[in-house]
Amino acid sequence: MPCAVDNFVRENQTRLLNELKDFLRIPSISTLPEHRQDVRRAADFVAQQMKAAGLEHIEVIPTGRHPLVYGDWLHASGKPTVLCYGHYDVQPPDPLELWSTPPFEPSERDGNLYARGACDDKGQMYMHIKAIEALFAVYGELPVNVKFLIEGEEEVGGESISEHVPKNKEKLNADVALVSDTELFADGVPTLCVGLRGLMYMEVEARGPARDLHSGVYGGAAPNAVYGLIELLAKAKGADGRIQIPGVYDDVTAPAPAEVESWKRLKFSEKEFLDNEVGSAELTGEPDQSVLARVWARPTFEVHGIAGGFTGAGAKTVIPAKAVAKVSMRLVPNQDPKKIVAAFEQWIRENTPKGIQIQVRVLSAGPAIVVNPDHPAIHVAAEAFSEMLKAPTVFIRSGGSIPIVGEFAEYLGIPTVLMGFGLPDDGLHSPNEKYRISNYYTGIMTIAHFLEKYGQTAGQ
Amino acid sequence: MPCAVDNFVRENQTRLLNELKDFLRIPSISTLPEHRQDVRRAADFVAQQMKAAGLEHIEVIPTGRHPLVYGDWLHASGKPTVLCYGHYDVQPPDPLELWSTPPFEPSERDGNLYARGACDDKGQMYMHIKAIEALFAVYGELPVNVKFLIEGEEEVGGESISEHVPKNKEKLNADVALVSDTELFADGVPTLCVGLRGLMYMEVEARGPARDLHSGVYGGAAPNAVYGLIELLAKAKGADGRIQIPGVYDDVTAPAPAEVESWKRLKFSEKEFLDNEVGSAELTGEPDQSVLARVWARPTFEVHGIAGGFTGAGAKTVIPAKAVAKVSMRLVPNQDPKKIVAAFEQWIRENTPKGIQIQVRVLSAGPAIVVNPDHPAIHVAAEAFSEMLKAPTVFIRSGGSIPIVGEFAEYLGIPTVLMGFGLPDDGLHSPNEKYRISNYYTGIMTIAHFLEKYGQTAGQ
Repeated sequence: MPCAVDNFVRENQTRLLNELKDFLRIPSISTLPEHRQDVRRAADFVAQQMKAAGLEHIEVIPTGRHPLVYGDWLHASGKPTVLCYGHYDVQPPDPLELWSTPPFEPSERDGNLYARGACDDKGQMYMHIKAIEALFAVYGELPVNVKFLIEGEEEVGGESISEHVPKNKEKLNADVALVSDTELFADGVPTLCVGLRGLMYMEVEARGPARDLHSGVYGGAAPNAVYGLIELLAKAKGADGRIQIPGVYDDVTAPAPAEVESWKRLKFSEKEFLDNEVGSAELTGEPDQSVLARVWARPTFEVHGIAGGFTGAGAKTVIPAKAVAKVSMRLVPNQDPKKIVAAFEQWIRENTPKGIQIQVRVLSAGPAIVVNPDHPAIHVAAEAFSEMLKAPTVFIRSGGSIPIVGEFAEYLGIPTVLMGFGLPDDGLHSPNEKYRISNYYTGIMTIAHFLEKYGQTAGQ
Repeated sequence: MPCAVDNFVRENQTRLLNELKDFLRIPSISTLPEHRQDVRRAADFVAQQMKAAGLEHIEVIPTGRHPLVYGDWLHASGKPTVLCYGHYDVQPPDPLELWSTPPFEPSERDGNLYARGACDDKGQMYMHIKAIEALFAVYGELPVNVKFLIEGEEEVGGESISEHVPKNKEKLNADVALVSDTELFADGVPTLCVGLRGLMYMEVEARGPARDLHSGVYGGAAPNAVYGLIELLAKAKGADGRIQIPGVYDDVTAPAPAEVESWKRLKFSEKEFLDNEVGSAELTGEPDQSVLARVWARPTFEVHGIAGGFTGAGAKTVIPAKAVAKVSMRLVPNQDPKKIVAAFEQWIRENTPKGIQIQVRVLSAGPAIVVNPDHPAIHVAAEAFSEMLKAPTVFIRSGGSIPIVGEFAEYLGIPTVLMGFGLPDDGLHSPNEKYRISNYYTGIMTIAHFLEKYGQTAGQ
């Protein structure tokens, strides 16, 4: 009875949207200590909503940083078990001045809902809860067993869930994980993501003179911490975009020919990508790689931010004593984060400029993952998705990182269905992040149908 | 009667120091718009003190930014005229947390007075006013004619005084200028500075994508404004410290052999310079140049500060849309600032990384200057200095920039006596700037004696 679930969503759509807005009003910015209480409020909100939807054994699990939220419903005897994962934390909203409406006051415009976290990942994670609510409302029970594990540290490396999963293998045991934190290849195109890059995030701090010096008196002979950091980081990539850190490409495996072929069939316009999404004069990166390969299947080196010396209005002639950069590398399948961290640290030692001391702090390091597209859950998900959007499902990768997907594979031995409903221009991590409101409703319906269809297959 | 002036200074030393402290309490930070009123208060303080010392025709001259202060005494018929210059503005005090006592609450420790501006240049400029006061007190008149022109924009490029001087050639007409904004080569060593580097100060802004982007989704294909700026600026200098911008060294003239010889006789210890002043692991810069040549006679390229992207606590995976750096070049004799600005802009155009747009804002550009050590005023100054400190006067250069000295030469046709009393470790532009209190008194006496001696030579 797919129509029954769809009707429930349509009849309740105003309420479903208002509840999401309440969730988005909580500024659960996991990286900023001053928002710790807000992050906690968001966890409590998730727990309450899971309970209201009909889940059982709800727990807000304390961790060293931000809590995990667990809940389950395990009465579908003989049916498979789905582990639903999502995150209730969000990225910082800065630069604030670029938001048309405040990031934590959800605002509807042109069929979109604008707010930090609207798409990444509150809006998408919340669809799972609402799909459960819809199924209970229509059938009084669920077609599969479900377990929910929702975290509040996805945007800061996910340390607590990484510790939790290996210690709770039995409790989290499932047939497949379901994650909605990716995007449609284009609006209306049913899309399953079968590969995610890993992420290694570092702070690199340079120190030069003992204190800031007068550039007239000392300029020409004293090391400059800002310039030392610039000199070092500039060596990380060639003008062709290739990473120059030795060993980084050693273990990179190229995508399978069939996958490369399927990417060629995707409707991708480099011009539209440049004009509508990136908005720069031209694209960069390895010229011998397609744009999709560059963002899906190649490692990256990025500087996310840099600060040092005098940056106020006007002129100050100082030789700075200290500078810091935030640096990451995206990792692709078969790269071992430990090896890449070691290669990076070795490269730093060999390239530190004269007179400069460099300190590296590794904030996180998670591997890339690939999902086998022949797994039954992927088949069922593709079918539900195609039926819902009345178009064939495409299989893509994502350049982003969801470290927990690798951990589910490693510790629970299960694949993940990456069924996301974001759009390429939703502006994740950017000002004016949005989520297409129709995709929120479509997502709830598609997830419910996936669970229904999956319930018709055999469990463990 | 040199002793009479010295006695006056000794008898009044507590008052002389307390008055300087009052001056230092005014946070006259010329580059920060929020301190505009404080800068104005400092100008008024200078005007009042000049009047109290016995000068006439006091004016606080409005400009487009911070006022000039003028005063004179022109009754020494047949005697030469000295144009006293100094500045009452100071550098910003940040980073504040590194100050042992607050920068605008002058504090005495170990024979030093700690405050922003204690040495650069309030403490030194104020000695001129107090020397005049001492001479009036002892003799009832001055041994020379004097004109004072004090500015409030030295730390921000000195635009207003640069406009004022060419328009007031007659009013400012003099035989020599006197500036105390340099330092002794070492404590107790009478030192005249006969060369100053010029300064060209720029803001360089890079833009990449239209907005901050998610580094997972776009990393590998989208330009990164922070990295683009890093790539560009890293090309400005080689690992050997040589500037790579074509044309920069074309017009550089080497110091005369006699000057190089005299530098070799100075007691300079590279180890002490490194340990006591710079405080880094090693020195940098052109290996084929002596350290003194590097800081006195060679052009530099420095990045004073850089900011862009995410620099808060924790991790944010953004590809930044914008980054800005503060950049300067120190110029040496015979380099034309206009040519160097053009060379820099041309170099930017040729080296801008793919996908990046660079905008350069030139905040100031002033030439280097050299003073002829054979000028009569320099001879007299050296003599007064030697007698005061009972040691031979040495002639050095300074790596810093006092743009007005070049303009006095160009528009008034006069040389400048650069007679400063700072010490190499006074920490100009740094936290914990200080001025040796004994040098403050010595400076007042030496300046008075210079004026007395100079009055015994023929005027214009």
